[in-house]
Amino acid sequence: MVTPPIGHSAALLARFQTIRKQTESLCAPLTPEDTVMQPMVDVSPPKWHLGHTTWFFETFLLKPHLPAYTEFHAQYAFLFNSYYNTLGSRVNRAERGTLSRPPLAEVLAYRQHVNQAMETLLQSELSEKQADLAALIELGLQHEQQHQELLITDIKYILSCNPLLPEYLPEESPVSGPISGKQPKNEWVTVPEGLYTIGHQGDGFCFDNELNPHQVFLAEFKARAWLVTNQEFLQFMEAGGYENFVYWLAEGWDLVQQQQWQAPLYWVQQDGHWYHYTLHGLQQVDLQAPVTHISFYEALAYANWSGHRLLTEFEWEALAQLHAGTPAAGNFLESRRMQPQAACLADENFAVAQLLGDAWEWTYSAYLPYPGFTTAPGAVGEYNGKFMINQMVLRGGSCATPQSHIRTTYRNFFHADKRWQFTGIRLAQR
Amino acid sequence: MVTPPIGHSAALLARFQTIRKQTESLCAPLTPEDTVMQPMVDVSPPKWHLGHTTWFFETFLLKPHLPAYTEFHAQYAFLFNSYYNTLGSRVNRAERGTLSRPPLAEVLAYRQHVNQAMETLLQSELSEKQADLAALIELGLQHEQQHQELLITDIKYILSCNPLLPEYLPEESPVSGPISGKQPKNEWVTVPEGLYTIGHQGDGFCFDNELNPHQVFLAEFKARAWLVTNQEFLQFMEAGGYENFVYWLAEGWDLVQQQQWQAPLYWVQQDGHWYHYTLHGLQQVDLQAPVTHISFYEALAYANWSGHRLLTEFEWEALAQLHAGTPAAGNFLESRRMQPQAACLADENFAVAQLLGDAWEWTYSAYLPYPGFTTAPGAVGEYNGKFMINQMVLRGGSCATPQSHIRTTYRNFFHADKRWQFTGIRLAQR
Amino acid sequence: MVTPPIGHSAALLARFQTIRKQTESLCAPLTPEDTVMQPMVDVSPPKWHLGHTTWFFETFLLKPHLPAYTEFHAQYAFLFNSYYNTLGSRVNRAERGTLSRPPLAEVLAYRQHVNQAMETLLQSELSEKQADLAALIELGLQHEQQHQELLITDIKYILSCNPLLPEYLPEESPVSGPISGKQPKNEWVTVPEGLYTIGHQGDGFCFDNELNPHQVFLAEFKARAWLVTNQEFLQFMEAGGYENFVYWLAEGWDLVQQQQWQAPLYWVQQDGHWYHYTLHGLQQVDLQAPVTHISFYEALAYANWSGHRLLTEFEWEALAQLHAGTPAAGNFLESRRMQPQAACLADENFAVAQLLGDAWEWTYSAYLPYPGFTTAPGAVGEYNGKFMINQMVLRGGSCATPQSHIRTTYRNFFHADKRWQFTGIRLAQR
Amino acid sequence: MVTPPIGHSAALLARFQTIRKQTESLCAPLTPEDTVMQPMVDVSPPKWHLGHTTWFFETFLLKPHLPAYTEFHAQYAFLFNSYYNTLGSRVNRAERGTLSRPPLAEVLAYRQHVNQAMETLLQSELSEKQADLAALIELGLQHEQQHQELLITDIKYILSCNPLLPEYLPEESPVSGPISGKQPKNEWVTVPEGLYTIGHQGDGFCFDNELNPHQVFLAEFKARAWLVTNQEFLQFMEAGGYENFVYWLAEGWDLVQQQQWQAPLYWVQQDGHWYHYTLHGLQQVDLQAPVTHISFYEALAYANWSGHRLLTEFEWEALAQLHAGTPAAGNFLESRRMQPQAACLADENFAVAQLLGDAWEWTYSAYLPYPGFTTAPGAVGEYNGKFMINQMVLRGGSCATPQSHIRTTYRNFFHADKRWQFTGIRLAQR
Repeated sequence: MVTPPIGHSAALLARFQTIRKQTESLCAPLTPEDTVMQPMVDVSPPKWHLGHTTWFFETFLLKPHLPAYTEFHAQYAFLFNSYYNTLGSRVNRAERGTLSRPPLAEVLAYRQHVNQAMETLLQSELSEKQADLAALIELGLQHEQQHQELLITDIKYILSCNPLLPEYLPEESPVSGPISGKQPKNEWVTVPEGLYTIGHQGDGFCFDNELNPHQVFLAEFKARAWLVTNQEFLQFMEAGGYENFVYWLAEGWDLVQQQQWQAPLYWVQQDGHWYHYTLHGLQQVDLQAPVTHISFYEALAYANWSGHRLLTEFEWEALAQLHAGTPAAGNFLESRRMQPQAACLADENFAVAQLLGDAWEWTYSAYLPYPGFTTAPGAVGEYNGKFMINQMVLRGGSCATPQSHIRTTYRNFFHADKRWQFTGIRLAQR
Repeated sequence: MVTPPIGHSAALLARFQTIRKQTESLCAPLTPEDTVMQPMVDVSPPKWHLGHTTWFFETFLLKPHLPAYTEFHAQYAFLFNSYYNTLGSRVNRAERGTLSRPPLAEVLAYRQHVNQAMETLLQSELSEKQADLAALIELGLQHEQQHQELLITDIKYILSCNPLLPEYLPEESPVSGPISGKQPKNEWVTVPEGLYTIGHQGDGFCFDNELNPHQVFLAEFKARAWLVTNQEFLQFMEAGGYENFVYWLAEGWDLVQQQQWQAPLYWVQQDGHWYHYTLHGLQQVDLQAPVTHISFYEALAYANWSGHRLLTEFEWEALAQLHAGTPAAGNFLESRRMQPQAACLADENFAVAQLLGDAWEWTYSAYLPYPGFTTAPGAVGEYNGKFMINQMVLRGGSCATPQSHIRTTYRNFFHADKRWQFTGIRLAQR
Repeated sequence: MVTPPIGHSAALLARFQTIRKQTESLCAPLTPEDTVMQPMVDVSPPKWHLGHTTWFFETFLLKPHLPAYTEFHAQYAFLFNSYYNTLGSRVNRAERGTLSRPPLAEVLAYRQHVNQAMETLLQSELSEKQADLAALIELGLQHEQQHQELLITDIKYILSCNPLLPEYLPEESPVSGPISGKQPKNEWVTVPEGLYTIGHQGDGFCFDNELNPHQVFLAEFKARAWLVTNQEFLQFMEAGGYENFVYWLAEGWDLVQQQQWQAPLYWVQQDGHWYHYTLHGLQQVDLQAPVTHISFYEALAYANWSGHRLLTEFEWEALAQLHAGTPAAGNFLESRRMQPQAACLADENFAVAQLLGDAWEWTYSAYLPYPGFTTAPGAVGEYNGKFMINQMVLRGGSCATPQSHIRTTYRNFFHADKRWQFTGIRLAQR
Repeated sequence: MVTPPIGHSAALLARFQTIRKQTESLCAPLTPEDTVMQPMVDVSPPKWHLGHTTWFFETFLLKPHLPAYTEFHAQYAFLFNSYYNTLGSRVNRAERGTLSRPPLAEVLAYRQHVNQAMETLLQSELSEKQADLAALIELGLQHEQQHQELLITDIKYILSCNPLLPEYLPEESPVSGPISGKQPKNEWVTVPEGLYTIGHQGDGFCFDNELNPHQVFLAEFKARAWLVTNQEFLQFMEAGGYENFVYWLAEGWDLVQQQQWQAPLYWVQQDGHWYHYTLHGLQQVDLQAPVTHISFYEALAYANWSGHRLLTEFEWEALAQLHAGTPAAGNFLESRRMQPQAACLADENFAVAQLLGDAWEWTYSAYLPYPGFTTAPGAVGEYNGKFMINQMVLRGGSCATPQSHIRTTYRNFFHADKRWQFTGIRLAQR
């Protein structure tokens, strides 16, 4: 990972406090009972997210670097390690939902304990060594932001399993409000043939999987200016898209039949209308908004049906190099909409909508190492590299991504069958 | 089911209030997070037990018989039905652990709502119809007592899964105190050959599976005067009992190998000593106390190894006809020991210890209908009969059974592989 | 096991030769490819049956008792052991279908090799020791007869899996011929209350699970004079028997839904008519013949629906004591009908049809040890006792049972969900 | 697919006859029993391969294009369709091993019937239409060659499951003979940076997944001149490679533990030496020969341990453009060695050994569509495209690949966990 030089630790301290508080505020609407649920193995209980992000700072910063630090509890290292083999044994991922203790209140106390110690560390004298620590702290904060997005998607899944369909944010503004922004002028934008430099450059933070900028040759292609909408996806459904194998990869078609998929995750049909469960409760599907909660298989089947295709992650990054930007009204975690919204640009200079935020865009690129990829020694090296198999790359962030966490070189990755993230579709032209 | 004539409803009201309160007091030491756990499919979350026992009264008593009754919540009938097909669809048993809502506080409010309505019902005028209601109310109370035992065994399993090994009753007296009572004088007691009448007779309550008293011919046999102790079971373990197939049924031997059983459930070896998890935390195994948390397979393997055998349920009932009684110091739920204790008789007239309470005794009888068994029409008929396959009968109650719930004709039943109940071994002589 | 004194070994030799030849003749219609199939784990490949029955004689007779015997192949003991832990490791049951070698021809050569050695043994001088051997040989022959029945049912299952629906016995007489025999005069026969002696008595061969004749008290009951017919079972089907949970045990109802059972095994509906696969190919269902290939769950559901019940194994044996006999036209393996036939008595003195032969009758008795049951030391002790859990007793033999193999005390046993044996239903009156 | 213009059909006819005969000769050493085995779901029974390759010609050529053609059997289309949804329902892949009928002899008759009809078709008058047919016939022959390789690997797996460890080719020359050829002069060869054209060009046959030659930019890299040997892999094993998670992808490490992998497939340790099952029986591992029967996970773990990496498929193709060639002594199916052999070049001009033949080389490239990839309409379009997910590309062919079937643009693909193909490792330098 790469971290910018820190002018002084005050800025880092402020950022630390903001991000840590944000995590807790995301859990505020939950009951203690909600925070221990694990209704499927991909989902982690919110209480576990609260503990695990804290464990990261305790393990990588406080224990090795703050001499006076006293461990909060001897067994939390075992309880809150996620997958770091370097750091010893841990609770099995599938059994995170069996842990009622420590109770939520105690995990919040653990957070306070670690926060205070981190503040001590951050207020201590600057030194050479401090530069390395800053990089680790930044990694811890980025890590926590990743878990903020997972918190939102996991909470959504947890509450959706409940027949009472509870509302996470009952008081919030409706998901599909009037669209006040501008639309892209053209449906398709062209990206010219050429050698593009792919990967992260410059001083800002990035993960190791974005490193080693390298040249990739691309032929000319056209990308769609906005994401596939619910209306468009409904046309696919009504045209029998879920019943016709010709649009599907073989493994996807098997899933469609085993799982009896007939619509995106969270959709239900009632009285001839389609509704979907949102974090604001059950709502009628907003036809102008991007379709979301679809697997890679569904994204590709839609693309095949429509006569188009998906972008590769390299094409996506080239497109973003030419057209990205952060419109003031971007739909990120901070908007609290918690659902993608219809294409809507703050500035008419943008030719492409929804590049960042709204919905992660499935690419037809497998998650593989960039040329020259290496892993750091020790536990931090287990962060990304060991997952580089059988997953597909997604780009661009979603409505559940913190705005300061995303960038155009960011590589997210999930297995092709996953549907509980805010995933969507951008088309390319053959 | 059979119910005695009720003199007046005041006694029933008092019993109703006592039993309902008892259930809540059993949950008092739990956190809200504890009450939603389902770490294996056999275990139900404590919050679910609280709701389900309440649903029973709402469904079978209040809705049909209290005209002014207002349902607490329209969806609770769906959430808290256990297995009654007659009463429509319900949450899948394996998914009870996915329900964080309604929160514990609301389920307790549901209990209060139903309790008040039941009190209204119980205080209303006596009538012919009332007699039927009394039978249903008694069934509801017996049902709740069954769930009190399940609550204890489920809570034990839930907390045992937690690496912190929390204590449910930290302040209670130790499990293995000095034994102040008397021991049986002889190791074996003889039951003579003859025709015995098996099944429930008289006016008291019983379940439908105990009905139809009928004659069973038994040859003479000898039964052991006390339950197999931890010390005796340790000898079996040390003699390689878990490593030698000759003592085991074929399906049991497969389980031993798949599950790598080497000791009863909850036992761990540390520094050369055996400990077991109890509701008072991890404790050294009490050698004089009965072995518990063993499957039928282990019970039979022990019997085979020792050169003896298990009783049939008919032999057990004949033994109990000759020797049962309720010593004042019986070890039931009310003792709060929550663990079987060493053989200990209050009265030297008893020849047999531990017949009632301490540990359920596996018999080598399958759970089958008595001659003439019939099921009641409607949902109540689903109570027992539909489980009469592939389960073994257990007799005598345990340290988690409410004292007023057990009797010598009581037939409990579990699959041969289950270990999370307080199950033990009484030997018979070949 | 008990064996009658053998007058001279000549009779035993003749019996040995007849039974061994019978096994081979049952495999004669098969291709080599047929003989290695294991389409489900309960089924063993016919080639394996051929080898395993031979291995029994090699292991228990020739190796210990014929000094000059040379083993046919060093690895056959490993390949053809079924489940005897005493005799060491073996091919996993589920993997018997992965063994293409040794080819069929070599297994037939193995049979010849062992047959010749057995003939040498049987022709050797009589001695004290010989009496023990005769018992073991008789056990081997009874064992081979059990496998003859399994061969028939396994072959039926194997061929039924093939979309070509091959005929095993194309040239044989049709299953449902004109019924030339007599019918019982009354629908129900009464068995009076009393103490009955259950279990094998006398000198003839029996298995260890039939031993220890003992008294069982039975109340008066009525048994149906013939087995439930296909026509009667069709009425149950047409009345929605497979769609209504009230008739079913809970575990049975789960199976009905998981496996989507709608008819007995092998039944298919075509153009409004019901056909079933038989060993003579696909045939229209014979309405007068007994229903077969049903699980215990279906038998009990039928009984419940009809307002009757199943017999216990003790009732069955009492009924047989009063009414059994072997009509000349009994429908056993030797008839080559390979399908139960309509009730048909050779002699009007019989009040009950189909007691022996036609279809095994599910009883509502679990397979448990008789009082005083003990197992023999060594491998032979693994024959029966270790299966005494989670299985139901069937009585009376079937159209695939060799006539000389069955008797009224014979206890067959299968898990309640099994359907590939020739199983049927006899009703009792409540 | 692309097919060269055919001068006259005589050449095609000769090629048809040779390839068809080759398939049968590969099955000649098998017993009928061998030809129906399916010990794991990836393996198809040899008899099925014989039928399926024949079905291809019947379905795509004879039925639509030979008017006088009479179908051999109405149900073979159902029995021998592999995965073409376009062509209707079929036997489930996992159930191919349940089909004993039609017997082997009849499938061979089916082959003859189709061969004769194909010969009629190939001898008929040339026409415009003929050109299309030639392309389809060529596809059928390439398809059959693919199944020849699968036949060899499936037969190996089938026989390896048998405790008798039968020899498929007992009389053949030993696998590890004296190496008579030349070795590469340098351990590493450099491929310079540049834009390479990847994909098939020219007139020869190729599959659709190789089409659309396109430019790929590559940085300079070094490739190893020979494949990783058994000796080198043993060093990895002895250094604890299978016990240390740091070398493994997370999903691979899970597999290592679940499956208890400790060596390549088919390896067994006896008396301190390593042996492996080969098609010539159990043999001591040849230390100079390439390691084979390893998963992608093992290939990558080895590369990580050795401080190197795997090539991408684009790097491999660039390497092959510079260094490929077909030495006369190449180790393909035709050599009948059936095992990779030590590096051995016929000509000293070759800098790189084992590029074609010996063992398929796992690349760290996922199997994805080339830019502009499209599928043909109809069933032929299901050939490749629908498998483009969750598989890794392998390059270069193996000792089981027919020599005329392989080329440097050929893309083979398997899931990362598969080990029953002849797979190996070529290293690149970081």
